[in-house]
Amino acid sequence: MIYLDNAATTRPSDGALVRAKHFLTDCFFNPSALYGGGAEAARFLTQARRFLVEQLADPAQYSLTFTSCGTEADNQAIFCAAKRGNAVTTQGEHSAVYESFRELKNRGVEPRFAPLNRDGNVDADALLEMVDDKTSLVSVIHVSNETGAVNDIAVLARRVKEKNPRAVFMSDGVQAFGKLAFRLTRDIDFYTVSAHKIGGLKGTGALVYRKCCTSIAPYLYGGGQENGLRSGTENVFGIACFYFAAQEKFSSLVSDGERLAAYRELLWSLLDKDLYVRLSPEDGSPYILTVSAPGTRGETMQRMLWDRGIVVGTGSACNSKKPHSRILEACGYTKNILNGVLRVSFCPAIAEEDVRETAHCMNEAARSFGG
Amino acid sequence: MIYLDNAATTRPSDGALVRAKHFLTDCFFNPSALYGGGAEAARFLTQARRFLVEQLADPAQYSLTFTSCGTEADNQAIFCAAKRGNAVTTQGEHSAVYESFRELKNRGVEPRFAPLNRDGNVDADALLEMVDDKTSLVSVIHVSNETGAVNDIAVLARRVKEKNPRAVFMSDGVQAFGKLAFRLTRDIDFYTVSAHKIGGLKGTGALVYRKCCTSIAPYLYGGGQENGLRSGTENVFGIACFYFAAQEKFSSLVSDGERLAAYRELLWSLLDKDLYVRLSPEDGSPYILTVSAPGTRGETMQRMLWDRGIVVGTGSACNSKKPHSRILEACGYTKNILNGVLRVSFCPAIAEEDVRETAHCMNEAARSFGG
Repeated sequence: MIYLDNAATTRPSDGALVRAKHFLTDCFFNPSALYGGGAEAARFLTQARRFLVEQLADPAQYSLTFTSCGTEADNQAIFCAAKRGNAVTTQGEHSAVYESFRELKNRGVEPRFAPLNRDGNVDADALLEMVDDKTSLVSVIHVSNETGAVNDIAVLARRVKEKNPRAVFMSDGVQAFGKLAFRLTRDIDFYTVSAHKIGGLKGTGALVYRKCCTSIAPYLYGGGQENGLRSGTENVFGIACFYFAAQEKFSSLVSDGERLAAYRELLWSLLDKDLYVRLSPEDGSPYILTVSAPGTRGETMQRMLWDRGIVVGTGSACNSKKPHSRILEACGYTKNILNGVLRVSFCPAIAEEDVRETAHCMNEAARSFGG
Repeated sequence: MIYLDNAATTRPSDGALVRAKHFLTDCFFNPSALYGGGAEAARFLTQARRFLVEQLADPAQYSLTFTSCGTEADNQAIFCAAKRGNAVTTQGEHSAVYESFRELKNRGVEPRFAPLNRDGNVDADALLEMVDDKTSLVSVIHVSNETGAVNDIAVLARRVKEKNPRAVFMSDGVQAFGKLAFRLTRDIDFYTVSAHKIGGLKGTGALVYRKCCTSIAPYLYGGGQENGLRSGTENVFGIACFYFAAQEKFSSLVSDGERLAAYRELLWSLLDKDLYVRLSPEDGSPYILTVSAPGTRGETMQRMLWDRGIVVGTGSACNSKKPHSRILEACGYTKNILNGVLRVSFCPAIAEEDVRETAHCMNEAARSFGG
C-alpha cells in the first residue's frame, strides 16, 4: 500500500508505539494516584508537556494542556476567548474552528469570516479590516488542510494586536506542527496541535497557550487534571505516543521537509497537464499537493486508486459527507474543478518510486474518464 | 504486584489489546475517509457502539456517542441539559459531575446538592424534596466511587419524573458499567461510562442517551462525527479496546461479581476489627471495599503497602490533592476516620491468596502506627 492521505491521519509510528508500550502494560497507573506508579506517570506527563512546548516556544512563556484531539483544543480556545461583540476567522478554517465560530452566533457573538486568496491562504487585508475594538478573538489556520497554503500567522498576529491589543489571537496548527520549522511569537496566544497527524494516535491533542493570556479557562470540569484546565483521567498512553512520535518528527523536520517538497514537485511534474490542474501553491507545506482533474469525480478516482493500492484523499476527511469542499469553493474554484479534487498528503516514509507509481496511476485514473 | 486500585484505573486487558491492534497497525485509517479502509473503520465503530448500547438497553430506544472519557460525557450531558432554574444532584458525585454542577452557578442555573446516607448513597427523600417544576436536570451517581454504595437509579428516576416529567435524569455509571447487572429504564435519559475502569484505555468513554430525549446536543463542534454529537477524529484504537474489554467483562459479569463479593467479605473478615472500621455497605458494589484505620494516615499506609507490592487507593484518585474526601465527609464521618481511609477496589484477575496477603499487610501497616 502507498499511503498518501497523511493529512487525514497517519499510520502510528512503530518506534513510538514500542517506546510508549511501558505505559500500557507496566506503568498503567492513574497519574493522580499518590503511590510510586502514579507519580511516575505524572512525572512523565510533565516531561512530555515540556518537550512538546519547547518545540514551539520558551516554556517560561508558554505551556500546554493535553486534550483528546485538535478539535477539543480548538473548541476550548474559541469558547473561552470569544466574548460578546465579534470574533474573526477565515473561510479556510478546518471544521473544528469553522463550526465553532458558527456556534458562537447562538451565544451572542458575531462570527466574521475573512475571504481567501486563490491558493487557500487568507486575504490578510480583508481579515484586518474585520478586526475592530469589539473583536475578542481572531483565529487563522497555520497550514490549510485542503491546499497546504501557509498563512504567515506571526505577521497576522502582530497586525491584529496593533489594531486591537485586547483581541486574543489563536491558530490551528494541526497541519504545521512537526512539519514546518516555526516558533510562536508573543502575539500568538493559543496554538492547537494533534498527535495523529504526526505518527501519534487518534484521541490526543493539545492546546498550547501563552501563560500570561488570561482567557484560558477549563472546558471540561471535574477532577482538576492538567492544572485545572482539562479534567478527566489523562490519556497517558496516547500522550506517550504523541511525545515519542514528536521526537521522531522534530529530529528530522528540516530534512524531511526538503525531501517531501522535492517529491511534491516530482509528483506534479509527472502528472499529465492535459488532465490535472494544480491547486496547491508552490510555497505551501511540502506535505500537501492538491490537484484537480476537471470533468472527473474525485471520489471515484479515489476508489480506483484504492483498488490499485494507493490511498489519497479528496479534501478534508472531516467533510467527506459534503458534496465538495467549502474551502476550495471559497478559493473561487468552479464546480468542474471542485468535483475532481484529489489531495495527496505525504509522510517521510514515502519513497521516490511510490511517487512515480502514484503519478502513473493518477494519470490512468483521470484518463479513464475519457475526458 | 497485587493491584487493588481498579476503581482509579484498571490494567488494560491483554486480550483486548491484542484484538484491537489491527486498528493501530493495519486499519489505522480515518473513519471519515471514503475509501475501503476508512469505511471498515467506520463500520467497526457502528458495531462497537451497538454492542455497548445493547449491554444496557434496547438499541431502538438508546444510542451512544463516544467521548474522550467519563468526565467529557458527564460535562456534555450536564451542560446540554441544565437550563435556567435549578439542577439537582447529590453530595456523593464524582468530581466530573460535582464540579460541573458548581460551574452551573456561573451560568445562571442554581445547583442543589442532596445529602448522603452514612454508607454513601443519596437520601432519596431529600433529593426528591429538592426537585420542583423549575428543575431541568437531576443527576445521581449509580455506584459511589468512594464507598461502592449503589443508588437505585431506576426508582429515583421514576420518582423524579413523577414529580417533574420535563426534568432530564442522568446517572454517572462509570463504576457500574460492566460490573453490575443493570438495564436502563425509560426514565433514565443519559448514562455515562468509561473504558479504563473495565480493562480498556484511558482516553475513551461514552455518553449513552435516550434517542427521544431532545436535550442531547453537541459539546464539541467540528467535522460532525458521531452523528454530529461529538466532533473530532474518532479514537478508533481506544474504542476498539473499550469494545473488546467490555465483551470480556460482560461475558462473566455475574460470576465475577459473585466471586469478588466473596473476596470483599473475606478481606473484611481478615482485617483486625481493633484497627479497622468498614465504610462500604454490604449491599454495595462487589468491586469496592472502603475501610478506615482511625488514628492512621491513609496516604502513609498506601505508600507502605506500595513498598510491599500492594496497590490500594485512598479514595477517588481524581481528588488526591485534597486533604480528605468531600464525599466521606458528607457521609458524616469525623476527621479521625477520614484521615485513615483506604479504598480496596478489585478486578476479576485477583486471587484468594492476594486477598489474604493484602489483609495481612493492611493489618501490619495499621499496627505500625502503634494505635
